[in-house]
Amino acid sequence: MSEPLDNAGIVDLLGVLAYGELSAFDRLAEDSRTAPTLQGRAALAIMAAAEIGHYRMLDQHLAGMGVDVFEAMAPFIAPIDAWHASTAPKSWLESLVKAYIGDGLATDFYREIAGWLDAPTQRLVLEVLADTGHSAFAEREVQAACEADRTARDRLTLWGRRLLGEAITQAQYVLADHDELVDLVMSSGEGLTQMTEFFDRLQQTHSSRMHELGLA
Amino acid sequence: MSEPLDNAGIVDLLGVLAYGELSAFDRLAEDSRTAPTLQGRAALAIMAAAEIGHYRMLDQHLAGMGVDVFEAMAPFIAPIDAWHASTAPKSWLESLVKAYIGDGLATDFYREIAGWLDAPTQRLVLEVLADTGHSAFAEREVQAACEADRTARDRLTLWGRRLLGEAITQAQYVLADHDELVDLVMSSGEGLTQMTEFFDRLQQTHSSRMHELGLA
Repeated sequence: MSEPLDNAGIVDLLGVLAYGELSAFDRLAEDSRTAPTLQGRAALAIMAAAEIGHYRMLDQHLAGMGVDVFEAMAPFIAPIDAWHASTAPKSWLESLVKAYIGDGLATDFYREIAGWLDAPTQRLVLEVLADTGHSAFAEREVQAACEADRTARDRLTLWGRRLLGEAITQAQYVLADHDELVDLVMSSGEGLTQMTEFFDRLQQTHSSRMHELGLA
Repeated sequence: MSEPLDNAGIVDLLGVLAYGELSAFDRLAEDSRTAPTLQGRAALAIMAAAEIGHYRMLDQHLAGMGVDVFEAMAPFIAPIDAWHASTAPKSWLESLVKAYIGDGLATDFYREIAGWLDAPTQRLVLEVLADTGHSAFAEREVQAACEADRTARDRLTLWGRRLLGEAITQAQYVLADHDELVDLVMSSGEGLTQMTEFFDRLQQTHSSRMHELGLA
């Protein structure tokens, strides 16, 4: 694999992550407005602000590579917006589950890719990973709601599955359109097997997070 | 002045600042959604996230005093929401002017009060002040728009004046309702003269900021 190709893959990867963070900010901020309590509003605002912390690290790293973050993000606006449009929460509890599951998926994703990257990019990703632990409020609230109401629990379980399903759908569109990203994954290990295992692991950690929320 | 009274003043002060930050986050995040460019959206998102950084410092400091941030904020929700309702931007440029002027007023305010406070609270306020410089984008964009369009400039000048006027109105309601805050200001210097000078200085720095934006 040639050096420029690897670099294009890294730029795409950082671009998709950067727009992921910016749009997560946007959704969390909007959802925070529907909070039934000031505590809930503050909790989602804090999660939203953390996304911007990550966004700024990605921006800085791209700038160091001589790449404009807005150019890097451009190809990924449509699929990420599509994911958010297909998973617009219809209640406060759906917002909390989405915040928690979305945060978790992002964490898994950052952890997975850390191993594929050159040392400076890897450091960046590990820094982003270190800044977590903002979702305890969501966990507590969803657990309490599920214990109190079996129907709510069943609905939120379906909702949690849909969040993952739509994420995988959009991830596959992204990969189909971006050969450099596929090359990056392939170059890092055993190719397709690696990719399949990657999605398998995402599903496993998703399930354990669903359990943490009290969802089946 | 008795010790508990001073403390009540400090709690009120930190409470009004904390809700100011939380509501600024909310407004900036909402306004970021109306940005005509991704650059503008990111710029306002970064300003919004910075507010949450300040909010968290205030929350931590209150917790250290044994005070719940939500209780401390409660009395100030209505006047601050009223300020935002009376100054809802009707265009992207109004959003930028509000972001810039609001940020500047908050900075002036933090700088003014730093001198009145006990050492640990003063350190907190100075830390908040050190985290500035996120509004360069707003400055550039408003300047460019004003140079290009005289009518836009005139309208934004009126808008900037209204932002200050409404802020002073709400500040006076807050003071009228909160004797502890008045006591805090009075105990720190020459009483009413100090208060008058405070509002005078706010008006002066507001004018110089209007100039920086290219507004008359």
